[in-house]
Amino acid sequence: MAQTFLEVPPELAQIQSRLTEGLARVEQRFDEQLASDLLPVERLCGHIERYRGKMLRPSLVMLTGMACGSPEISDRHVTIAAVCEMIHMATLVHDDILDEAENRRRGRTVNHLYGNEAAVILGDYLIASAYHLCTTIESLDAARLIGEVSMTLCGGELLQLHFRDDYSLDRRTYFEILDRKTAALIGVACHLGARLAGADEATQAALETFGRRLGVAFQVQDDLIDLLGTEAAAGKSVGKDLEKGKLTLPVLLHLEGLAPEQRGRFLGRLTSAGAVADEDDLQASREDARETAATLREEMLKSGAVRAARDHANQLVAEARQSLRGLAPSPAREMLDLMARAVVEREF
Amino acid sequence: MAQTFLEVPPELAQIQSRLTEGLARVEQRFDEQLASDLLPVERLCGHIERYRGKMLRPSLVMLTGMACGSPEISDRHVTIAAVCEMIHMATLVHDDILDEAENRRRGRTVNHLYGNEAAVILGDYLIASAYHLCTTIESLDAARLIGEVSMTLCGGELLQLHFRDDYSLDRRTYFEILDRKTAALIGVACHLGARLAGADEATQAALETFGRRLGVAFQVQDDLIDLLGTEAAAGKSVGKDLEKGKLTLPVLLHLEGLAPEQRGRFLGRLTSAGAVADEDDLQASREDARETAATLREEMLKSGAVRAARDHANQLVAEARQSLRGLAPSPAREMLDLMARAVVEREF
Repeated sequence: MAQTFLEVPPELAQIQSRLTEGLARVEQRFDEQLASDLLPVERLCGHIERYRGKMLRPSLVMLTGMACGSPEISDRHVTIAAVCEMIHMATLVHDDILDEAENRRRGRTVNHLYGNEAAVILGDYLIASAYHLCTTIESLDAARLIGEVSMTLCGGELLQLHFRDDYSLDRRTYFEILDRKTAALIGVACHLGARLAGADEATQAALETFGRRLGVAFQVQDDLIDLLGTEAAAGKSVGKDLEKGKLTLPVLLHLEGLAPEQRGRFLGRLTSAGAVADEDDLQASREDARETAATLREEMLKSGAVRAARDHANQLVAEARQSLRGLAPSPAREMLDLMARAVVEREF
Repeated sequence: MAQTFLEVPPELAQIQSRLTEGLARVEQRFDEQLASDLLPVERLCGHIERYRGKMLRPSLVMLTGMACGSPEISDRHVTIAAVCEMIHMATLVHDDILDEAENRRRGRTVNHLYGNEAAVILGDYLIASAYHLCTTIESLDAARLIGEVSMTLCGGELLQLHFRDDYSLDRRTYFEILDRKTAALIGVACHLGARLAGADEATQAALETFGRRLGVAFQVQDDLIDLLGTEAAAGKSVGKDLEKGKLTLPVLLHLEGLAPEQRGRFLGRLTSAGAVADEDDLQASREDARETAATLREEMLKSGAVRAARDHANQLVAEARQSLRGLAPSPAREMLDLMARAVVEREF
């Protein structure tokens, strides 16, 4: 993460380079754990390297550890960082099956290249490897937290699946899904980083809160980037959510402010845009969908829903930063603070 | 298992009733662990009850525990029994996606009823729940073994997938797949049953061997039942393996005894039967496939391949029973011995 969306001031250069070194150790631990004497396993796991992204979770495990007084990045921190990333990777591999996705980051998805069967088993292998790796640090608490958060994560996935194409989704459920599906694991990464550095329970809890707020803010910002961003800045196609008829936070907040009849009309146009994007390949229909999406976006900007979503993300980041106050000042704490601010400042 | 394919002599009635009581506790632990405040999770997990089969793994955890001197079935045995069954269930749910299966045991499959997406996540939820439950017994060794065996299991699945429709599969790889995919978890169930009863390492290892041999024998017997059994005795459709062109142990042993040219002809007929069963719904073609399968079966009976496969299963069971010799005599040991014999005597 440090490398990809943070502009780091000179006084944090040293901690950033320690983080970079730590991330290299995490990658090594990750690859060692997945090494197998079975050729088909080796081949599929090799593909996973291409999925590697911002390494947000490993970065947080190590930074929270250092912010809690661990001067060096311990081996146990490296292991738990690899565990968190492995679980995250497993969810990506299985998510791509659910979404019938063909591309992820720099390459084709596993399901697209090798079929759904291989993707199902590869995800399972990553989960099993994560659990096994977790037991090597000899901490039952860590194993329990990792088991628990995986259950939470699956619960979030099932909830999201249940509400797919269901336009009665409300703000409370939207946040419940985000919190379970994304924020919980980020929270546990921070919690474990603190715990493995010997922090007391209050500090562990404060850092878990930091991670959870950051995780939700990250997703809300993703909604906003897709809605308002430019392809050039985001480095990926934008405007997809509206074209797919997806219920994002700005849409939900806009709907809350509408009278029932207006609400129905807005949803009608949203779903028609989604239906076209889904089922029709004709250039003309796509243009229509894009125009409808542009109109909907205008209305959401005028109603203040976009503003409100942005306020919400800012509020979450403020709460996250507040959770850092109890820590003694340190470059690692500064880096965490910088990461929290960067979440809502980034355009990609 | 005790209820379904064992005929138990009077002197083992008491241990059998203890086992039955234990299994009821396992079911309760299983259901408690999966309970969720999320409605979509509750609904899907409710469906899993219909998958419950012979409860082989839980029975072995508890019987090996009792055979190692645990007079009562301990809470930790009940927990690990539920963990093993949960991991087994997860593999069934994900297997059904791979096989595009529509029915399992008494009902429709999850993928058929709720879609592949729900089945992927439900399987993940079962795995996560199993790991979490495992940490509640405060044994890092148990957590490590369960993590490790899950990796082994996924490796077996990937190997099997890799060799799907590959007629170069040999006996060594066939057994490697069986051992990883099925026998390893059964072995760990026995290993943990012994360990939680305080058995020494040699006994743990002997009982792991017992479970692994039993697991492989069980699968070979499944091959034989499908090849030779009657629908009435098996309680399910038989003869499917040949019609699907599947490489089972009798087929592999038969192929080993053929000259290259004969081998090619046999495989040609096997794959043509498989292709028909796969792609053609016409009644006439199905009849052809069934006739081809009957001829192939005749040849395998004549060549002695069926006999050799049966000998192999018997040999595995003999080795399994041999592994029990070091244990002090007890009704639980007798029951394990009876189960081993029953594996090759059963017709279903």
